[in-house]
This record gives sequence, C-alpha cells and structure tokens, in this order.
Amino acid sequence: MSDIVTFGETMLRLSPPGNERLENASDFEVMAAGAESNVAIAASRLGATATWLSKVPETPLGRRVVGEIRSHGIEADVVWSHRGRQGTYYLEKGGEPRGTNVIYDRENTAVSTAEAREFDIERIQDARVFFTSGITPALSSTLRETTMKMLKAARQGGTTTAFDFNYRRKLWSPDEAHETLTKLFPGIDVLVIAARDARTVLGFEGDPRQLAHRLGSQYDFTTVVVTRGADGVVGWHDSVVHEQNAYETDTVSPIGTGDAFTGAFIARRLHGDDVPTALEYGTATAAIKRTIPGDVALVSKEEVDAVVKDGGQSISR
Amino acid sequence: MSDIVTFGETMLRLSPPGNERLENASDFEVMAAGAESNVAIAASRLGATATWLSKVPETPLGRRVVGEIRSHGIEADVVWSHRGRQGTYYLEKGGEPRGTNVIYDRENTAVSTAEAREFDIERIQDARVFFTSGITPALSSTLRETTMKMLKAARQGGTTTAFDFNYRRKLWSPDEAHETLTKLFPGIDVLVIAARDARTVLGFEGDPRQLAHRLGSQYDFTTVVVTRGADGVVGWHDSVVHEQNAYETDTVSPIGTGDAFTGAFIARRLHGDDVPTALEYGTATAAIKRTIPGDVALVSKEEVDAVVKDGGQSISR
Amino acid sequence: MSDIVTFGETMLRLSPPGNERLENASDFEVMAAGAESNVAIAASRLGATATWLSKVPETPLGRRVVGEIRSHGIEADVVWSHRGRQGTYYLEKGGEPRGTNVIYDRENTAVSTAEAREFDIERIQDARVFFTSGITPALSSTLRETTMKMLKAARQGGTTTAFDFNYRRKLWSPDEAHETLTKLFPGIDVLVIAARDARTVLGFEGDPRQLAHRLGSQYDFTTVVVTRGADGVVGWHDSVVHEQNAYETDTVSPIGTGDAFTGAFIARRLHGDDVPTALEYGTATAAIKRTIPGDVALVSKEEVDAVVKDGGQSISR
Amino acid sequence: MSDIVTFGETMLRLSPPGNERLENASDFEVMAAGAESNVAIAASRLGATATWLSKVPETPLGRRVVGEIRSHGIEADVVWSHRGRQGTYYLEKGGEPRGTNVIYDRENTAVSTAEAREFDIERIQDARVFFTSGITPALSSTLRETTMKMLKAARQGGTTTAFDFNYRRKLWSPDEAHETLTKLFPGIDVLVIAARDARTVLGFEGDPRQLAHRLGSQYDFTTVVVTRGADGVVGWHDSVVHEQNAYETDTVSPIGTGDAFTGAFIARRLHGDDVPTALEYGTATAAIKRTIPGDVALVSKEEVDAVVKDGGQSISR
Amino acid sequence: MSDIVTFGETMLRLSPPGNERLENASDFEVMAAGAESNVAIAASRLGATATWLSKVPETPLGRRVVGEIRSHGIEADVVWSHRGRQGTYYLEKGGEPRGTNVIYDRENTAVSTAEAREFDIERIQDARVFFTSGITPALSSTLRETTMKMLKAARQGGTTTAFDFNYRRKLWSPDEAHETLTKLFPGIDVLVIAARDARTVLGFEGDPRQLAHRLGSQYDFTTVVVTRGADGVVGWHDSVVHEQNAYETDTVSPIGTGDAFTGAFIARRLHGDDVPTALEYGTATAAIKRTIPGDVALVSKEEVDAVVKDGGQSISR
Amino acid sequence: MSDIVTFGETMLRLSPPGNERLENASDFEVMAAGAESNVAIAASRLGATATWLSKVPETPLGRRVVGEIRSHGIEADVVWSHRGRQGTYYLEKGGEPRGTNVIYDRENTAVSTAEAREFDIERIQDARVFFTSGITPALSSTLRETTMKMLKAARQGGTTTAFDFNYRRKLWSPDEAHETLTKLFPGIDVLVIAARDARTVLGFEGDPRQLAHRLGSQYDFTTVVVTRGADGVVGWHDSVVHEQNAYETDTVSPIGTGDAFTGAFIARRLHGDDVPTALEYGTATAAIKRTIPGDVALVSKEEVDAVVKDGGQSISR
Repeated sequence: MSDIVTFGETMLRLSPPGNERLENASDFEVMAAGAESNVAIAASRLGATATWLSKVPETPLGRRVVGEIRSHGIEADVVWSHRGRQGTYYLEKGGEPRGTNVIYDRENTAVSTAEAREFDIERIQDARVFFTSGITPALSSTLRETTMKMLKAARQGGTTTAFDFNYRRKLWSPDEAHETLTKLFPGIDVLVIAARDARTVLGFEGDPRQLAHRLGSQYDFTTVVVTRGADGVVGWHDSVVHEQNAYETDTVSPIGTGDAFTGAFIARRLHGDDVPTALEYGTATAAIKRTIPGDVALVSKEEVDAVVKDGGQSISR
Repeated sequence: MSDIVTFGETMLRLSPPGNERLENASDFEVMAAGAESNVAIAASRLGATATWLSKVPETPLGRRVVGEIRSHGIEADVVWSHRGRQGTYYLEKGGEPRGTNVIYDRENTAVSTAEAREFDIERIQDARVFFTSGITPALSSTLRETTMKMLKAARQGGTTTAFDFNYRRKLWSPDEAHETLTKLFPGIDVLVIAARDARTVLGFEGDPRQLAHRLGSQYDFTTVVVTRGADGVVGWHDSVVHEQNAYETDTVSPIGTGDAFTGAFIARRLHGDDVPTALEYGTATAAIKRTIPGDVALVSKEEVDAVVKDGGQSISR
Repeated sequence: MSDIVTFGETMLRLSPPGNERLENASDFEVMAAGAESNVAIAASRLGATATWLSKVPETPLGRRVVGEIRSHGIEADVVWSHRGRQGTYYLEKGGEPRGTNVIYDRENTAVSTAEAREFDIERIQDARVFFTSGITPALSSTLRETTMKMLKAARQGGTTTAFDFNYRRKLWSPDEAHETLTKLFPGIDVLVIAARDARTVLGFEGDPRQLAHRLGSQYDFTTVVVTRGADGVVGWHDSVVHEQNAYETDTVSPIGTGDAFTGAFIARRLHGDDVPTALEYGTATAAIKRTIPGDVALVSKEEVDAVVKDGGQSISR
Repeated sequence: MSDIVTFGETMLRLSPPGNERLENASDFEVMAAGAESNVAIAASRLGATATWLSKVPETPLGRRVVGEIRSHGIEADVVWSHRGRQGTYYLEKGGEPRGTNVIYDRENTAVSTAEAREFDIERIQDARVFFTSGITPALSSTLRETTMKMLKAARQGGTTTAFDFNYRRKLWSPDEAHETLTKLFPGIDVLVIAARDARTVLGFEGDPRQLAHRLGSQYDFTTVVVTRGADGVVGWHDSVVHEQNAYETDTVSPIGTGDAFTGAFIARRLHGDDVPTALEYGTATAAIKRTIPGDVALVSKEEVDAVVKDGGQSISR
Repeated sequence: MSDIVTFGETMLRLSPPGNERLENASDFEVMAAGAESNVAIAASRLGATATWLSKVPETPLGRRVVGEIRSHGIEADVVWSHRGRQGTYYLEKGGEPRGTNVIYDRENTAVSTAEAREFDIERIQDARVFFTSGITPALSSTLRETTMKMLKAARQGGTTTAFDFNYRRKLWSPDEAHETLTKLFPGIDVLVIAARDARTVLGFEGDPRQLAHRLGSQYDFTTVVVTRGADGVVGWHDSVVHEQNAYETDTVSPIGTGDAFTGAFIARRLHGDDVPTALEYGTATAAIKRTIPGDVALVSKEEVDAVVKDGGQSISR
Repeated sequence: MSDIVTFGETMLRLSPPGNERLENASDFEVMAAGAESNVAIAASRLGATATWLSKVPETPLGRRVVGEIRSHGIEADVVWSHRGRQGTYYLEKGGEPRGTNVIYDRENTAVSTAEAREFDIERIQDARVFFTSGITPALSSTLRETTMKMLKAARQGGTTTAFDFNYRRKLWSPDEAHETLTKLFPGIDVLVIAARDARTVLGFEGDPRQLAHRLGSQYDFTTVVVTRGADGVVGWHDSVVHEQNAYETDTVSPIGTGDAFTGAFIARRLHGDDVPTALEYGTATAAIKRTIPGDVALVSKEEVDAVVKDGGQSISR
C-alpha cells in the first residue's frame, strides 16, 4: 500500500548532448520521462511511499523505462503488453531566443490501449492520494475513459484525487482539452494548473490570484494551485489564497519543474503540512530540480530542507 | 543524371555503444541506415554516380537522415512530407551465442505513403540502373504498388533493374513475401538473394550453385547472385555459374555487408567488368565493410583494389 | 515473499573504458557489482522472485548502488547506515598475456558491521532458497557470525541454503578461508565451488568429477557443483555426477559468469528442473552473460531458451 | 545553377570538449569550419540555393570536410588535389576574463594553391551572388590573384559580389590587409565589415553609422553593413543608414555569428526583402546561431521567422 | 633545488560529468586534486620552480595521481608506500540553490602515516618557500606532528613558511582546528585565510581589513592574506593593509580558486613583486582558474599578464 | 644523469575512437606519440632512469605533448621553440583485410630545425646509452646532421649508442634511407631492425638468423636485433645468434610494439642481463604493450616478470 499512486505514460526520452541539435546529432542521451512517474518519484523523495501504474510493451525498450523508474525506489506496477509501441520523444535544448523543442513520437503506444480493468483498482483505493495529469486523457479515447474510471474509483475508495492540468498543444487543441478535462473536474480534489492554461484553454481571466479563486469557486475543488513559472505559485484552499515566490536558480534543465513541485506538494500535504508550508516545499523542490539534468527530481529531503531553511549553500566540504 | 538510382526507406538507427544492451543503455549512437541508400553509397564509392529517392518527414529527424546520406556524396532526391513518422530501428549488437537483435519501429512512416506520381520518374528512366529491395514492398500496400510502377517505368525507359530480395521476417511472413515478390520478378533483370531466403521463402532446394541456376532458369533474370554469408557468393549469368569466396575479416559490424556487395557489384558491372570480376569486387567491398562500424560501406576504390590485388595490408606508415 | 533471498556486499565498481589502464584513465565507468546481488538478479531473470539483503551507507554512493540493483526488478531490502564506507573496487580489463586486475577498496564498509539482528530474519525463513557466498564471511568477523546465524535461521525455517565458495585471495589466505568456510558447510545444502578452489583451499585432489564426488561424500551437501571455467561444470546430486560443457562465446566481460550460472541454476531448480537440465540452463545463462559488459546477467528467459534449444542465432530482423 | 556561390577555405576544426584546455585535452571534437562555407549554408537555410567552391586534398581529411559541408544540403564543387595539406585549426573556448583562443595550422594547404582556371567560372557567372571574404586573399599570393580574378569574372557575368572584410590578425598585419583588400574594393557590391576592422585596418573614424556612411561614400559599394558585436549592425544603402539591434542570446558558441548574419542577409535580399528587413533576418539568424555549438548556423527558416515575429519562445511541446 | 616545496595529500577526484548527480552517475571523470599540489602547480605556472612532497601507495591509483601531477611540469618527490589507501573524493557540482557537494573517502590513506623522517628534509631547507595547508594536520595525528616538524625544519633552514588555513568542516570541528592550527602559527611567516574561517574557527571579528590587521598583530606573521570570495582579497604586510578586488568571471569550476591565488601570490613574491602587485597577480590567476574545469590552474604567465593589464580579451584569431 | 637518453620527434596523435574512419569521425582521441619517447618510457618502466630530448613549439600543443611525456615519469629536456609547427599524425585503426592507416602531417615542425648545439650534449655523454631511430634523420637535412653529431658525441663520451632502423616509406624512399642510414652505422653499437627493412632497404637476403649474422658481420655493431613481427626476434651478439619467440597476445593496439621491445631490451641490458634474457624481457614487454591502447608501454616490471615467469595470468582478485 503506497501513500500515492499515479497513472500515466512514461516515455523514452532521446536528446542530443548539451546544446547539440537533433538535426546533426551523433548521439542521444536516453532517459525515462513522464509526468506521472516524475510526480511519484518527487513525492517519494520527500518521504511518501509511491507507486506508478502504466502499461508498457514487453520489449527491451519497455523494460528500459520500467527499470529506470524502479531505480528511483518507487514501485512500478505495470501491465506488460505484447502489442503497441513504447512511446518516445525527442528533446532539443534551446536557449534564448530559440525555445526548447520537443518532438513527440507517441502514437499507437501500448499505454494508449490501457483499460481500467487491466489494473488492480484496489491499489488506487488503498492509497491516500491518486494522481494523474491532463496528458493521459489526451493520448487516446481509451485513456479518456480509463482516467474517468480511475478517478471515480479513487473517490469511491475515499482516496484524494490530484490532477495536473498539463495542457500540451502538440497533443490536442485547446477546445478538445477544454471539453475533455472539465468533464473530469467533478472527480478532482486538488488541481494544479499553469496560469497560461487557465487562460488559453479554460478561458479564465485575471492575475494568478484571481485565477485560483475563480477556479476554486466555479468547480468543486478542495485545493487549486496556479503555477506561474519564474514568478512562483499561488495556492487556493478553504477560500484563502496563498502566494509563494520561486527561488532563484542556476537552471540546467527546466523540464520536470512542475512535476517536482506537484510531487513534493502532495508529499508534504500527506505529511501533515498546511498549504503554505507545502507550497514552500514544493517550490524549493522545483528549484533544486532545475539544477539537475533530465526530467526527474533527484533530490533528498535534506537538500530541500536546507533550501527552505536558508536558501541553499555553497561548497560543502 | 546518375548511373544508378535507388528507392527505399532510410531509417534512423539507434544503438547502444559497443556491446551494451538496450535494456540499460544510457546513450544511443545515431545513424542513418537503409538498404537502398547503402547500395547507392557503395556504388558511388566504387565510382558510379548515384541518387537515392525516398519520402521523408519535414522534421529535424527527417533532415538528420537526409543530411547524413548527402554527406556521402550521393544525391538525395526526397519528397518532403508533412505527414507520417520518421522510421527508426534499435540495434543491439550480439555475440556468440546471443544474436544481434533488431527492433523495428517503422510503422506509419512518411515513406510508407510514397506514391510513384510524387517522384520525377524520368530520373529513373535516365539512369542506367534502378535498384530497390524486398524491404520496400514489405512496408505498405502503397509501396507495393509504387515499387511495381517504378520497376515498370524503368523497364520502359530502358533502365536495367536490380533487386535485392532482402526478406525480413519481422516485417512479413514468408508467404506474403513469396506472393508479393514473385509478382515483381518479371520486371527484374538482376536479382540478389540469400540462399536462406531462396529456400525458406521461395521454396527452392539445393546448394547455392543449384539455387542460382534454378532461379535463373525459372524466371527471366539476366543475372542472379546467391549470397551465402561467410562462404561467399555465387553468380549466374548467361547460364554460367561463377563462385567467389568471401575474404577473411576482422568483423566490427556485419550490418550492411550485403548492401556493400550489391552496390559494388552494380558499380563494377556499370564500369564494364564481367560478372566474375564484379563478384570479386563486390566481395572485397563487403569484406572491408565488415571492418567498419555502422551500416555504410565507407570504403575507397583504392582500398578495394588493394584487397582484390593482394588481400589487404598491415600498418601503412 | 521472494523465492530466493541473498545476502552480501555490493560494491561500486569503477573501471576505465575499454582496455584503458587505471594508471592513466581519465574516466571510470560506474556500476554496482556484487556476487550475491548478481545471483539474485540472474535468478530473477530466469523467472524467480528475488530479494537482496545488505547494509549500505545512507549517502549518494550507497543510494547509487541500491538504485541500480532495484532497476533490475529485484527487491533491495537494505539497512541504511550512518557509519561505514561504501565499498568500491577498481577493475582493469586485461587480455592475454596480461590478466584482468582487480583492486579492492572495501575496508571499513557499512556492510562489514552488519549483524543478523538488523535484518528481518523471517524474510529468509519465508523464502524457498537463501544464498550467500564465501566473500561475505571474508569481509569481517562480524560478517562471519552473521553468515553463520543466517544460514542457521534459514535451516530452522526450512529454507534451502545455497553457497558459492568464491575464494578471493586478495581478501584472505587459503588457510583462513578453509577454517572459516568448512565451519559453515554443515549449514549448506547446495555448494558451488571452482575446481581450483577445491584443490588450493580445501586440499582435495582429482578431476572435477572426483572433486564433486568427494565433496559430496565428505560433507552433508544435497548438491555440489564444481565449475571448471571454459570446460563447463560438473554437478553431483543423489550420488550421481552430471557433466555439462560450456558454450562457445564471444567474451566481452568474463566477470560475473559464475554468478550468472548459480542464479540461473537455482531458479531452474526452483522451477522444478532436474539437476542436468538446471546445469544446462545455468551454463547457457553464463554463456550469454559473457557477451554482456559489466557483472550482471542482463538476459531474458527467451534468450536463454534459444541458446539451450539451438545454440543461439545470428542477426534477428 | 545556385543563387549564391562562395569561394574559400574550409578547415578541420579541432576543439577540446566544453571548457577543457588544449594543453591537457584527451579528446578533440572535429568539425568542418570556414567563413565561406558557413555563409553558403546560412543562405541555404534561409531559402537560397548555394554552392561552395574550394580546393581540397584527396585524403580522408579532405573528404571529411567536404562530406560535412554536403550534409548541410549545399553543393560542394571542389577541386580534389594530390598536393597540399588540409588546413586545420585548434579552438579553445574561453570565458571572462580569458578569451577564446584559436591556433591556426593552415600553411601549405591545398587551397592556398587554388587558381581561378581550375574552377568552372561559369558557375560564378550563372549565380546571382558571388561571395568570398578577406580571409581568402590572406592565405597566399596565389589566392590573392584568384580572388581578384573571380570577383572580376563575377562582375563580367552580371553577378552581384559580396564580401566580408573578416580581418584576421593571426594571418597578416593591418597594413598588408589594407593594401590588399582595398585593391579588391572596386569589384565589390556589398561589403560587410566589423566596426573594429574599419577603424584598425582601414583607419576610418566615427561611430558605426558614420563608418558605414564614410565607407559607402569613399568607395563604390552598393551596400555596406557595419557590424558591432552585441550592439547589432548598421546598414548603408542608397545613402540611407539603417540600424538594427542585436537580440539577447544565451550564447553557446559565438564562432560563426558574423557568417550566419551575412548568409541570411544575402538570402533575404535575394528573396526580395529591402535592406532593413534583411538586416533584421540576418540579426535573428545570428542570434539563433549563438545558441548552437560549432561554426554553422543550423537554423530553420521557421525558427528565424519566429524570432523576427515575437522574439522566440519557451518550451514547445 | 626548487623555489617552492609543498607538502600534502593529493587525492583521486571522482566526479560525474557536467551537472549529473552522484546518485545516478554512469561515469566519473578522474583527476588528481590536492591543495598543496595545486599551489605548487600554480606557482610553477607563474615562473617558480616547484616540488610537491607526499606519500602515495605503490598501486596504479597512486601512480595515476603522481603521473598527473608530473604532467604539469613540477617535481613529485613522493615516498612510495606498500600500506595505506589512495585517498579519494567524490565531487558533485551544484548550482543555486543547491551547493556543490564533496564526499571525502580519505581515511586510512598512505599519506596519513607520513613521518618527517621519511623525507629528505634538506629539500625543504634548500627551498625559498615551504608551503602546506590546514588540511594536512587535519588528516591524522601523525601528520600533525609531521607538519610541525617540517615547519620547524624550514625555519631552521632559513626557508620562508607559507600556510593556507583551509578549514574543512568534514574533517574536524572548529575547536579541534583552532587548537591544532594556532599551535602551528609561531612557525608560519605567510598566512592565507578565508574571512569566514577567521571568524568561525578563530573567533575573530570585524571586516576583512580588520581581520587581517588583528591576525597580523596577534601572531607573529610577516604577511596575512584574508580572502573573501567574490569580493577579492585583503593583504596585510608591514602593518599596512592592501585591498584587491576580484575579477568578474564566467565560472566553470570554483574548486581550486584559493590554491591558484596562493600559488601565484607566492611565485610573484619570489619574483620580487611587492605585496599589492602579488595580490593582483594572485587574483588574476584565480580568476582565470575559475574558467577552467578541474582543480588545477592550467594558466600561462602570458594569460595572467593579459588579465592584469587589460582585463582579458575576446576571440583571438 | 639518466641511464638512457633518447632524441627524436614526438607527435600529437589524433585518432577516431574504436574502428571509426577518419572520413566521418566526429571526435579524435589525442595522445603524444613518438618512437624515441616510447623507448625512453619503456626503459623507465623496466627500471632505467630515462630522459627524452626534443625541440617543441612553445604553444598549448607543444605543452600538451611534453606534459604527457612527463606524466610517465621520465625527464623531458626540450628546447622550446617560437618557430615551427607541432607535428601531428592521424591514425585510423584497420582490421583484416584493411590495414591500419597513418597520415603524417609533420612537415615544417619545430623539431625539424633542431641543431645539436641547442642541446646540452653532456647529458648524452653522461648517460650510459644514447638512443635514436631512423625516423629522426628522415625528417630534415638539419636532423640528419644533428643525429650524426649526437651519435659522435655519445661515442666520444663513452656512451653506448643504440638505434632502431624504423624505415617509414611515407617519409622517404628506400634509396634515400639506405644512403643516409648506412652512413650512421659506424657510430652505432646496438642496431634494431625489422627483417623486412633489412631486405627492402638494405638489400640483405636470408632468414632472420642470416640477416642478423650478415648485418653484424658487415658493419661494426656490437649487437644486432632483427625483429620479425609475430614470429619474435633474433639477437646477434659476440657472433652468436639467439632466437626468441613472440608471446600470444589479445592485440588491442600494435602501434609501439617495437619501441616497447627496444626500451625493455636496453633497460635489461643496462640492468646486467645477458642478451637472451634481455630479448625475453623485451618480447614480454612488447606482448603486454599490444594489450594496451595507444603507443606507450604502460607496463609495470611486476607484470613483465609475471609474463616471463609463467606466461601471464587470468583474473586477479
């Protein structure tokens, strides 16, 4: 029985080293990367026990992904499939004025065929929190249904449901996302959403404080967190809005920053922290994540504590 | 106007360095690899001018593939597509008693939608040789038709047609291959085929000499080359069978050996060599290829000459 | 509850790439390596569920080791320690006429202080097999006692005990090993031992068949396997001796060959195979291991089946 | 027939990875790098067809250079030589307060013997623009004459001539450069020159606007572009001066910034843009170039459009 | 006979590439690193002849360390030992808000057993300066005594003694350091100390100017240099305090900055510079060091001169 | 004062990793390589003190070469030059049937201008052996004279002179070599020569025993060693011929095999061994060299002893 159970796709991420371009790369770095496994790992790093659910092809590539997730000490409870591809994506690091570029190659994957009945739903119902993100229902109509069923099952089992809106324009249009995701909202307790997505996809207006308030009021969420990149986050809970600034960072990889925040926020809430404290820990974890290559928040609780307490340190020897 | 024009898919090849396994690789080496571009490059190395035709997605991955092919000095006359994936494959180097393993990820590619009318067919008709392989029609029904049309057009233009049987069991069954490929046989002048494929797919029996003879007799080929791995090749031409032994090699990469042979054989035939001499040059080129990483025969005419003349040399300084 | 539980030290292995020498290496490849975790992984690959027990420092290095072991899908049930080093060793690959060289740097490790009472002994007693090797008691007097207690506990719990003699001359003298290890023999059901160790350390004489027979007769083992390198293995069971030849291999890394054999042998015995069949599977697993870099048998059951059935294959595409 | 034809030396560039020093490097990254091929590639990226002319040794090193240039999709029309070295240079990346250091090893090269009669001058005369830089005549007296002849031939053929002043103090003194290059000025339509060179080598005074104006007035140029590093560029055309600021960049490699500007500026002028628009595109291309390792502007037209339109973007997924 | 002789431990430094974390590194970069050899090398780069004394295990690891030190052109006069380990440390590069982390693994080393009688003390007495740092006596009680004896011998031989306070909290407590190091002070002529250490370990108060003055007054030093990181250094000599600002740098590796300063300061003093000039050269050397990976100041005298004269330069070609 | 002093060029060796071809390499491995420094290092490894004399450009490339030589623990007594290039060569590893290929780029080097008067000739006269090879006089007419003068000076000082014939067809013709090198013979005590060179360049006939005898008889050598590759060596001394077989090896790099032999042979002769014993040690050193990447014999005396005693060993742990 894990504190948090997450469900979603984890891809093989292929990226040229450093600032090389895909177009003339002679090597790719290989990693396993997915929002939901990232959240599970970040939560685990902050002290929660965590399980990641997915469906994965029974191939060396599928085993490659699952092995890496397991190396982080969380449970990977996957359905091994003899059909469907392993999803991949190509990431090319940018730099002003050229943005970081992602090329998805995730059609016809094994996970896109995952149905709720293939999983042991009691694992979700025995957990304290169930998490997935807006990427999952964007991947296939099957997954739309599966997501809905899992959220419902979690509710029935008394499990808190958390959801990161995570709009990806390369997967679907704002309208499609709007229609699908708002249907899931009634089953969600804790919503994390970028201010940009609240505006562009959901059509809300106002500054992040207002967005959080309006989202919290319009739907039946317990908690709403609006993220605003380098400006930190805003949390709405019990009709109160809390602001948390982001930390200054030497950014090595911005990918996974939001997942690091969400995993840490959930873990600290499970640990008993109030919302402002959990926002602070989430933000500190996200800050450290940015100093680390890859998608995963390879942090220790001690490091996060140190940042929360005194904003980090110099050479420790 | 090139001496030889080839048509087929060139994939992005991803392989762990050295003898690492896919399952725990942290890096992939990236190359462009495809039978038909390999043949064009090998022919070019031996002195023929060469063009490779294909259809490629207009993405960094597609440009990655085309750029590498162009670096070898052949012309890449590709249709740039806004739909369809770039095909990839994962290669894991084996070693006795574990075989080299290939995982294809080449469904729904741009090339699988390539129709004859998208290409400038006069380029084929102006060439002296048109080449494709049994991999191409295995990729989609569209490509089956395209292959047929191109072979016909070549014939109409007076262009010699050459074809490598190249059966791939991970793409289709022997029966499917048999049915499809024998339909193409009437349009083919020069057939290259592995003894194993002649037996398993086409149902012929006998030793390689007999296979060459029977294939040449039963169908209307001008030339038939039966390859038999480490035992060399057998060539049938004008009802005469010629044997050529393989050279001893320090094998670094066996992938692409057959393509190196075929490209060199065609180039030397175009140069005016008789069949036995062309077989010898093809075999020498294939031997050097095996000492070179990757799929491509990065050889020079001088090196091939040296092997044909005196079987190679030691340190040259 | 795992089928097999193993106990022992897993080190951080540092080795220069390829054939580079330690003396002027500018990079080290980093891996986790230890006989007992190797055996657990090999058993798991062949279908058994497996757990590895150890004591590890609560540092990034300790987490590095445990993370890698977990990536292989076995359970790592470790005592995290705030005292003691992470053991390391430096490996320099040789080649005739220069041997592979190992430099141990494994004194004052966390694991050397591991006491039986720190572990959940019921995990051993619930397993079907408990495995450790002669390396463990060589590391400290504390570990000598811990090994003895764990073997005894296993017996009391009805768990089969398996032991690889694994004499390491850089850890102790033959006399010390003789004295310590023979004291453990009464608690051991299945002994794996190199013919060389049986002669040099235990003072037995004869060919491997005789060694197996004499060891089996003199002590109270159920099964004795005598390994003889490239000449294969000999298994003694129910007073019958079975011989199994080794497979020809393209050896990339000989390290871990014995562990691969032992893990596979145990897994197949647990699966219900008779001794000759288990010896065959062990030998095939060991053969594939030799084609893989590192210490770990990154094999699949299908690959081992293929070798047992037809001695492996060539390019699969 | 290409829109733009360039002529000059392309070297093998050898550089330690990252910020390593030459003095203790154990590896060099290898690239092909030269101002004139850089300009051709940048122009091609922005939509012009491009050809690079040069003379290259018929060795693996020469083929290495030509292959890389061809991979960028431009035509490499080179004279293969059996005499003369392949030029190389060593580049060591600096950082404040230590400058980037370049060590030229480009004496006695094949290209230094290139005479105009070795090339098909009609290729220059059929092009819309001919480009070379002040580096070419600095390399040998033969090349001084060749440059002069090619510029003259271009004029005779009605081809616009463009020239980057590119003063290199490690090749010749300001006086030598002054004397040689001003002799070429009468044959040049479009001059690109660094403000620093206009002052130090040509002895002009004033701010970049004044420099552009004075250069344009004193000689018979159609267009003069004065570059001023991080402060952008100034363009003089039809007696009007246009200013264009540089974009903010996360600079990975400043090498080749000027060539990226020039290639893009020329391509956009050929495309029909007016001077201010072409300056803007040139500057945007130069900005993206700075985010890319190596000398070459591996950009796409879409990326440049995006920067011109809205100053770039963040993660695109 | 060298101008400067230093004594201390040089470790094998193991660090993941770039910003990777130890916890999932698959490779370590390997270097030799130690304060006292760093100082000798920096002094040598600035023109002094230098010797480093140490005790090193007679193993490939020990030879690895000594070979690298020798490659820098200084003399390595080491006692080869058949007992004791080679000290290692693991370095993980940080970034705001996560500090750089160092894990020492330097217990039971060969050098910790080094006694004064094992060295040719005349080498110290023939030198113009003898240098060691506060790290050396922190390593063992034997080394405490050895440090004391060497400082005394130097004094007796008329050799100037220089000492970097170098407090390392991972080696000992402030109290232990205070007690031990102040006992050494009477034998020291030139003290270099971080402002932070002067406050935390020695209990002094005030700004760096005051610290320098108070240290100089309370003890019998000839020269005191107080370093204050990015704010530069303060030098006290003949009762006068001199300030020197730090240069702006693009920092690649801050490790070894202090050693670079100290080595260059000593070399310039030996060369005859007054204290302010030597402080300036020391600061310039430290600034260039920060642009270079690793611990060692791989600078040339010309580069340091250039920084002192005009604050560095841009691309030199 | 060193036991052995050698004189000659050491180049920067640039080679693609593994079996990659120069023609499409993206990285070069960098090493310092030269016959005379190789011999000095091999002699030093076997217990002799050694000095290498040369002339090197005062550039980062020159310092790169000298630093690496110094790292091997021998003295590098070089004349630093402000004129002339650092010699380089490109090495491409072959494999049957394609030979290893070397491309020299060593014209107009600093060393080619080295005159005897630039060196401290007493260093040669104080040594017990002076060594150079037939490569040195092949590099320039200046070096021809310098070689002659150094050999004469050595004789005058009572220093034994040793010489490796080392004919390089890419440097000069057999006739040139014959004329130049036979003029040096009267000044040489110990000659090492490949059987092939004795035949091709000097025109001798017969098997290696006969060649050794005839060379020894015709000229005034004390000792002649004829090497015959995989068949070992033949030594002639005091009119007696001794044969020594080569050891079986797993060859990683054959480059430098001869230098390893010669350095070890000289060191053992200096140590007092008779010719047959020294031949055996030389052959064993050469055998281990072949298992090591690069040109240099990174061996230890213990390893050579082990091979001489029992032909090497397997895994040592």
